Amino acid sequence: MGEPFVHTLRVRYSECDSQGVLFNANYLTYVDHTITEMWRAAYGGYKTMLDRGIDIVVAEANMRFLGSAQFDELITLEATVTHLGTTSLRSTHRFHHEGEQLLEATLRHVFIDRRTATKTPIPDWAREGLAPWVIAEPDRARAAARR
Amino acid sequence: MGEPFVHTLRVRYSECDSQGVLFNANYLTYVDHTITEMWRAAYGGYKTMLDRGIDIVVAEANMRFLGSAQFDELITLEATVTHLGTTSLRSTHRFHHEGEQLLEATLRHVFIDRRTATKTPIPDWAREGLAPWVIAEPDRARAAARR
Amino acid sequence: MGEPFVHTLRVRYSECDSQGVLFNANYLTYVDHTITEMWRAAYGGYKTMLDRGIDIVVAEANMRFLGSAQFDELITLEATVTHLGTTSLRSTHRFHHEGEQLLEATLRHVFIDRRTATKTPIPDWAREGLAPWVIAEPDRARAAARR
Amino acid sequence: MGEPFVHTLRVRYSECDSQGVLFNANYLTYVDHTITEMWRAAYGGYKTMLDRGIDIVVAEANMRFLGSAQFDELITLEATVTHLGTTSLRSTHRFHHEGEQLLEATLRHVFIDRRTATKTPIPDWAREGLAPWVIAEPDRARAAARR
Repeated sequence: MGEPFVHTLRVRYSECDSQGVLFNANYLTYVDHTITEMWRAAYGGYKTMLDRGIDIVVAEANMRFLGSAQFDELITLEATVTHLGTTSLRSTHRFHHEGEQLLEATLRHVFIDRRTATKTPIPDWAREGLAPWVIAEPDRARAAARR
Repeated sequence: MGEPFVHTLRVRYSECDSQGVLFNANYLTYVDHTITEMWRAAYGGYKTMLDRGIDIVVAEANMRFLGSAQFDELITLEATVTHLGTTSLRSTHRFHHEGEQLLEATLRHVFIDRRTATKTPIPDWAREGLAPWVIAEPDRARAAARR
Repeated sequence: MGEPFVHTLRVRYSECDSQGVLFNANYLTYVDHTITEMWRAAYGGYKTMLDRGIDIVVAEANMRFLGSAQFDELITLEATVTHLGTTSLRSTHRFHHEGEQLLEATLRHVFIDRRTATKTPIPDWAREGLAPWVIAEPDRARAAARR
Repeated sequence: MGEPFVHTLRVRYSECDSQGVLFNANYLTYVDHTITEMWRAAYGGYKTMLDRGIDIVVAEANMRFLGSAQFDELITLEATVTHLGTTSLRSTHRFHHEGEQLLEATLRHVFIDRRTATKTPIPDWAREGLAPWVIAEPDRARAAARR
């Protein structure tokens, strides 16, 4: 079975707000940075995807903020692919700092044909590239929202 | 009954990505801008809240991206307060451009005592200030996630 | 003679840093916002320029930070075109808040042919559109730097 | 004699604009990131400076844009301290990608007493910490501006 893709980021001064912590929307930006690195590890990067005529857009993001990332802290960002459908990819993201979880998020991306700008089946090379980080799991954020 | 608080923003060049559209995390930033304006209309602004010893943090954000906001477009941002609990506020946000809905989001904020940095009951002046935009409604994003 | 083009911006929470003031690089972003609005007033906007095969890039920026823009303050941004050369445009930018000057900046932009990505003469429609804000003046930032 | 402090950054998707390159103001943000890393190497970081009652603000930034940093490229950022006055620090910044220079910038920072928010002499521990990267050199950007 798969295991999480792990990326590390240090919180930058420009990313923090007046509260001295990572501004809320930047958690989603951090998810984007992590996914860019996962694309690189999976099949050479986002540009490779574009060169092959495929683009990807975010369709859904569900985020639970559990703690604050402070300026200059090193944050561990784990990403797992929890579902690879026909055209959509669901991923779960967990941010940690020294054992404390700061974020739990699930995203849904949709694969797009660049020429037609419409949904397209996930290519085999993408499925194969992402295989190491596929872990089927219940969507905790959705489960939490249901309560 | 209440009605939506309405704010308008023009998409800035610096907020767009290589796809020429508003970068995904900036939709959450736009929600933040809208809430800042709602605070202003409700009780004089975020600084007033801070001066009264109260701060507010985002606990949860559920976003469905339905369309793309393009550079230079004027976007209409509607915000409604769907729930005022003891310490938490739930709001729904809808972005439109010329009749097309671009975003459906629900956020949950928690009120905080600035001295103790812990949850605190929503003050009466905040409840009263927000009253014009309170519309009890089912959480559509959560309902959608449940399906 | 010309007069400054004037734009007004309210400082957003997401644009401030831990010092509670507009993050330094965002002053340059504000210059960019102002120029976008000047393009709109001059000839219909940046997209119009792109549609006509012309793009523009920043070649030089000289900024003196004279004061701090605080969260939620309304800032007045004045822009004047101080030089229209063959291919380059020099502009001066002054930010004020309640009579206090916060920034003095000069920028140099270069006009580009989109197909060849090389310098191109400033088109007549651009010269004519910008005429209301052309004020030949010594470059104060450069003069200051010389001392 | 000293040598440049060197930092490396990969251009992030969220930092690029519709032209697919690093947005102009983000070059100044990159200078800020580099300085944060130089503070860390010099005396333990920006927080250490704050804990010792000292803060620092940008007074001047002169930037010449020589090339474009593209999405996903690794950029080398060199910083040298070109002047340590009584209260102000002047630094030069050069960005490169595969041998091509993208930016030449000089900044002037001023040291501030956090309690009084006024200029304060640069402490000895700051002078000593920055010593490895001090290279007295003419200010090329200013020299260029003079021509």
